[in-house]
Amino acid sequence: MAQKSANVCLIGHKFMGRTHSNAYLKAPKFFTDLPVNPVMHTICGRNMAELAEFAARWGWKNTSGDWKSAVQNPDIDLVDVGTPNNAHMEMSIAALEAGKHVACEKPLAGTIGEARQMRDAARKAKGKSFCWYNYRRVPAVALAYQLAKSGKLGRIYHVRAFYLQDWAGPSVPLIWRFSKAVSGTGAHGDLGAHVIDMARFITGEEFTEISGAITKTFVEEREIPAQGSAGGIAGGAQAAKGKMGKVDVDDATLFIGRLSGGGVATVESTRFATGNQNKNGLEINGEKGAIRFNFEDMNWLEYYDATSERKQQGWTKIMVTHAPDHPFAHAWWPDAHVVGYEHGFINQVADMMMALGGTTPTVPLPDFEDAYKTQQVLEAAIVSAEQRRPVTIAEIG
Amino acid sequence: MAQKSANVCLIGHKFMGRTHSNAYLKAPKFFTDLPVNPVMHTICGRNMAELAEFAARWGWKNTSGDWKSAVQNPDIDLVDVGTPNNAHMEMSIAALEAGKHVACEKPLAGTIGEARQMRDAARKAKGKSFCWYNYRRVPAVALAYQLAKSGKLGRIYHVRAFYLQDWAGPSVPLIWRFSKAVSGTGAHGDLGAHVIDMARFITGEEFTEISGAITKTFVEEREIPAQGSAGGIAGGAQAAKGKMGKVDVDDATLFIGRLSGGGVATVESTRFATGNQNKNGLEINGEKGAIRFNFEDMNWLEYYDATSERKQQGWTKIMVTHAPDHPFAHAWWPDAHVVGYEHGFINQVADMMMALGGTTPTVPLPDFEDAYKTQQVLEAAIVSAEQRRPVTIAEIG
Amino acid sequence: MAQKSANVCLIGHKFMGRTHSNAYLKAPKFFTDLPVNPVMHTICGRNMAELAEFAARWGWKNTSGDWKSAVQNPDIDLVDVGTPNNAHMEMSIAALEAGKHVACEKPLAGTIGEARQMRDAARKAKGKSFCWYNYRRVPAVALAYQLAKSGKLGRIYHVRAFYLQDWAGPSVPLIWRFSKAVSGTGAHGDLGAHVIDMARFITGEEFTEISGAITKTFVEEREIPAQGSAGGIAGGAQAAKGKMGKVDVDDATLFIGRLSGGGVATVESTRFATGNQNKNGLEINGEKGAIRFNFEDMNWLEYYDATSERKQQGWTKIMVTHAPDHPFAHAWWPDAHVVGYEHGFINQVADMMMALGGTTPTVPLPDFEDAYKTQQVLEAAIVSAEQRRPVTIAEIG
Amino acid sequence: MAQKSANVCLIGHKFMGRTHSNAYLKAPKFFTDLPVNPVMHTICGRNMAELAEFAARWGWKNTSGDWKSAVQNPDIDLVDVGTPNNAHMEMSIAALEAGKHVACEKPLAGTIGEARQMRDAARKAKGKSFCWYNYRRVPAVALAYQLAKSGKLGRIYHVRAFYLQDWAGPSVPLIWRFSKAVSGTGAHGDLGAHVIDMARFITGEEFTEISGAITKTFVEEREIPAQGSAGGIAGGAQAAKGKMGKVDVDDATLFIGRLSGGGVATVESTRFATGNQNKNGLEINGEKGAIRFNFEDMNWLEYYDATSERKQQGWTKIMVTHAPDHPFAHAWWPDAHVVGYEHGFINQVADMMMALGGTTPTVPLPDFEDAYKTQQVLEAAIVSAEQRRPVTIAEIG
Repeated sequence: MAQKSANVCLIGHKFMGRTHSNAYLKAPKFFTDLPVNPVMHTICGRNMAELAEFAARWGWKNTSGDWKSAVQNPDIDLVDVGTPNNAHMEMSIAALEAGKHVACEKPLAGTIGEARQMRDAARKAKGKSFCWYNYRRVPAVALAYQLAKSGKLGRIYHVRAFYLQDWAGPSVPLIWRFSKAVSGTGAHGDLGAHVIDMARFITGEEFTEISGAITKTFVEEREIPAQGSAGGIAGGAQAAKGKMGKVDVDDATLFIGRLSGGGVATVESTRFATGNQNKNGLEINGEKGAIRFNFEDMNWLEYYDATSERKQQGWTKIMVTHAPDHPFAHAWWPDAHVVGYEHGFINQVADMMMALGGTTPTVPLPDFEDAYKTQQVLEAAIVSAEQRRPVTIAEIG
Repeated sequence: MAQKSANVCLIGHKFMGRTHSNAYLKAPKFFTDLPVNPVMHTICGRNMAELAEFAARWGWKNTSGDWKSAVQNPDIDLVDVGTPNNAHMEMSIAALEAGKHVACEKPLAGTIGEARQMRDAARKAKGKSFCWYNYRRVPAVALAYQLAKSGKLGRIYHVRAFYLQDWAGPSVPLIWRFSKAVSGTGAHGDLGAHVIDMARFITGEEFTEISGAITKTFVEEREIPAQGSAGGIAGGAQAAKGKMGKVDVDDATLFIGRLSGGGVATVESTRFATGNQNKNGLEINGEKGAIRFNFEDMNWLEYYDATSERKQQGWTKIMVTHAPDHPFAHAWWPDAHVVGYEHGFINQVADMMMALGGTTPTVPLPDFEDAYKTQQVLEAAIVSAEQRRPVTIAEIG
Repeated sequence: MAQKSANVCLIGHKFMGRTHSNAYLKAPKFFTDLPVNPVMHTICGRNMAELAEFAARWGWKNTSGDWKSAVQNPDIDLVDVGTPNNAHMEMSIAALEAGKHVACEKPLAGTIGEARQMRDAARKAKGKSFCWYNYRRVPAVALAYQLAKSGKLGRIYHVRAFYLQDWAGPSVPLIWRFSKAVSGTGAHGDLGAHVIDMARFITGEEFTEISGAITKTFVEEREIPAQGSAGGIAGGAQAAKGKMGKVDVDDATLFIGRLSGGGVATVESTRFATGNQNKNGLEINGEKGAIRFNFEDMNWLEYYDATSERKQQGWTKIMVTHAPDHPFAHAWWPDAHVVGYEHGFINQVADMMMALGGTTPTVPLPDFEDAYKTQQVLEAAIVSAEQRRPVTIAEIG
Repeated sequence: MAQKSANVCLIGHKFMGRTHSNAYLKAPKFFTDLPVNPVMHTICGRNMAELAEFAARWGWKNTSGDWKSAVQNPDIDLVDVGTPNNAHMEMSIAALEAGKHVACEKPLAGTIGEARQMRDAARKAKGKSFCWYNYRRVPAVALAYQLAKSGKLGRIYHVRAFYLQDWAGPSVPLIWRFSKAVSGTGAHGDLGAHVIDMARFITGEEFTEISGAITKTFVEEREIPAQGSAGGIAGGAQAAKGKMGKVDVDDATLFIGRLSGGGVATVESTRFATGNQNKNGLEINGEKGAIRFNFEDMNWLEYYDATSERKQQGWTKIMVTHAPDHPFAHAWWPDAHVVGYEHGFINQVADMMMALGGTTPTVPLPDFEDAYKTQQVLEAAIVSAEQRRPVTIAEIG
């Protein structure tokens, strides 16, 4: 096992707190050759009773109700920001300024201004920065990256990205995900951020212009939930009957745009795509080949080799579980003994530990510089929708 | 068998000429209770040698090199315009003014101005007008219409329409489909027209605004083909080595827009979607349910019933071949003895004959009025792309 | 067009009569280079009124209520036997002895004894014999044959063949398909015959032993239908309330066996596979590759290339519609403008005309010799089920 | 959290050792309301160096090189037998006789005789017995059970079960899985056992007769691996060049049989199904409905409701991740944030803890009595293949 270790301080113990805790716990058990092992040092939150139980369950050594002092603790090496978007900036910058490595949940921030400050802080910091675009480390997505990188797609013509959920019907109460103050945006930043990152990651190209965008709120008022409700996607919150509040984020955002290599893209994120619970993915059509991926079938990557013998050409459905050929497969189970949602996070912990230990991660990790570029695309789409005009990424700055 | 018959004059004997001839030939053989039977009276074209062979093969009684006089022939009841787009207007209006019923290939015309004249002529004519939006009569699409019509989808949130082909690589020569003068547009009018029609047909809603659009030509110059080449999708034409010509239509058009019921839509048409040879279809997400269809699997309709017991909810893949429950199934084969591309056309001939005979077609037929509305959407997208701004359908007029 | 023609006499005007008529009508329209064109000369049947209407609809020049004299007509070149199984032998042998070419519906006969006489008659005849194993000429099946033939599968380990229907619930009356006297067997000969033929055709191997078999009749008594009902799969017959008759054929037959190359096979045919209306196909696993096919998705063949780079290995879903690479594609529509059930028959007419004209068919046609081998497998399975023991094909003789 | 706990002693630290360790570690983290929590008390093995590292990694408190004394330790509540099949009996009976609860890997034993002794020992023991038929606790399989149990399938007509792998090509050395002395059987007991259990579990029926069976060894000699190689499916072992040994187990076993409710079944297990790495599942066709499942797409269950409106009938693909409607979903992630192979084991630990705590497991757990019935089916198939005749389950005793 690794001689070195990195003490982790995680802020947040809800959906992402649980996901990240599981990842820190499991990564060193499955990745047996990490140069640095994560140590579950401190968990931060506000409700000390819940926190104590959470720490006991997951094996966090310490709890803290004061994240500001926790991130200053000299024993901490890595601060993990797993809170809602409006807290990302303050926490991340504080940790970076304290000389820590920082892993922040996505999107980088709730607003472009905050994201820019985070990027700038990361540029000056001695610690490394990471953003939890976990889908990069779904094995099939990592394989898509490798295929594209090795020239299998050629010039990119089309990107068709989508993140479709359907949980947000009128009966869902006004949880934090519907609040601009807390989240910045709705489906756009929550879901769209992932597929924008995926498109950028796999193609290695940048968006240059958002040529048109629509943001749409299908349900404009929702019941205000009773105190203390939270968690899950929809939070499982019970509405406090009778009191309604205004939704000020998008339920869906769709946009079209142009890529740096001359291709074009459509991106759609929604919480109203009836029939799709977590269908996020994309299709990329290139001169030499194409790939398509959809998280609901996350162990498969489909690849079309347009250079193969025409008689046998077709979409090849690759079960991405074969070691050592497929990314991350060596850590897991035999062929086709499939992995799930949580494995993207565990794989990311492993890759972050490799980065901290000076070895090369399986596929590139998004740092704040990189995550800021996704934020620019999010912002350009918002401006395009508001101002009803094409917006270049250069304008966003 | 039917006592009445309708004498048909078909103009065009290439790809659509063959498709329509097959449809007239077969419709009365499979639909044994048509009120009116089509009679293959006259086929019009320019190359009399080719025309003679074509007529002999398909059973057309007469050939004519002069469509203008052919459409005046008092024996003719229905004129079918199966030529490239730039000829639609003149031929259709001449036929309507001669008192004939007219069936015109899609899109209605190469330009909005021509389409408007055709619509106006149809308003004044005593004959009926039809447009060959053949995919309406794919049984799965007709079933989608019936489900939506009966309220199974509820309020429409999303339409996600696509028509993906991949035949137009740089080695394909400059056939008529790449010429604005002949075609009006490229992928947009050729492919997009179909899925716009399908979206309008199934939802029963109209587009109200194109909020953003991109047209893209990936290959800007192509070799000029040798004399006389044509036909097929890519025409099978051989390039005349050395001489290059400019492509002045789109290889791909993508747009986003709003629907009259408050929903939003993405529409994408392309000849560069590597890996997709004829993938045209759509997904519609509504409040109560959803449907998805893809022509490459044309005998299936997927339906999601969001009102069913949650434990059993999922996409139901319906094999649309069961008589008498499924549209058109009574005319064809036993369950799951599937049909193909040509059957949409044959079904349309049957429905046109029903319309001529005064009975109600299986599902609504698009007339010029209806087809003009699809043309408005095409036009609004073109204007939006050119002027780089949202364009309402009302603006198009 | 072809200079030569072959006058066809078709016996039977129900389900197969319609299917074959359509095939004769269409083959020369789509296959424009046939060496011999079929001419729809005479249709034979018993109900002269129905026959007259059928002939008028489909373009048969003559009708005959006396097949015995019709097959003696010197003008006839090809006799097509499209009747239930118990009539195959007498008609086929009469036609062969009259010097005609014969195309007989499958299975070759209702009993092994009859089949053997037919094979022997064909050996002595000067005319050619064909059996309507139409699925060989589904483009995807023909491609599977070509891939196997070219060595893409290597040594065959497994064949897993199935023909699943679900139309035979207890409410279906006692139509001819449930009668041993008329059909010989139930699902076994009706459905199993097809997939046995497909397995033999694609692998190029023979079954050597049926190692175990089960025949099962789930519904042992059914209502006797009113006079004159018939047709379709389930015949659409109305039961004559109250009178029950005994089913004496199998509703399902399953068996396991060994192949001449050392591989093993499972074969299952049933009319009680709830959820499957016409799912017939197979998977073949070889040393170098594998294929799988399922008629419900008939335009696709899945192929697994086990010799390709492991990182990209997977099932490739081939849309078998690309001319000229894919069998029969040149005759039909552009890429992915898919074909249906009837096209297997039309393709067979084209290939039979090629055989009559002395050119090589696209893929091998089954003659009576070949069809007898499928009959041996059917028989061995019946004996195995009855005698509850393994039965070699050699025993059947 | 639970007040009670159960000290676990696990024997084996290879593939299953790792899988079970992960399950004990994670179950109480995700199932937050278990009546009894597992405690990772002792891990047993032979290589003390490997064992020490394994224990450190996974958090086992103690290691032991002497399983016989370890299972006598009064602190131990549950003994988990995760060794090759030939050790199951001795260990399980010793543990049962020591008054422990026992969880034994599947199949129950390498031979029917050993399995019978285990069953008998369990009958007399005061501890509970469990068998690791982990696929019962894949959520989709558990849902299939629930649907069948609630009458959604009606009378069962067909079971079509398969477990297809393809890792055992000629280059794989002679690991323990190819040895009868260690494994009892090859694919049959390793793979077939799972799908026989699944079929029995979902239908609630028993096999009554194996009507025919084939066992096949495609590769009869393999290289003897170098000392110490093991693990994984194929063990990753390196062959010791030159020395060959005989394979004395089946590479594939296929059989057909009859069920207690009158239905029929096919079962196939193989390590030579090129293209399938871990495709295990089944289709069940009943009078009122049907289900199908395939582990490679483990988060989906397909269900066909034959009692629904015919127009909308089809296979419904259910994403089995919705809490609280779907089994186990409450413990995991939001809708469609899918689970993997390991979750079946974790779910089984949770259910075993519920059983030990006196609450009802999510779906029934297989005890030795139950697992013995699967062993009878395995044995009957072996006898049928050897003696080339139908064999009833009653004969096996």
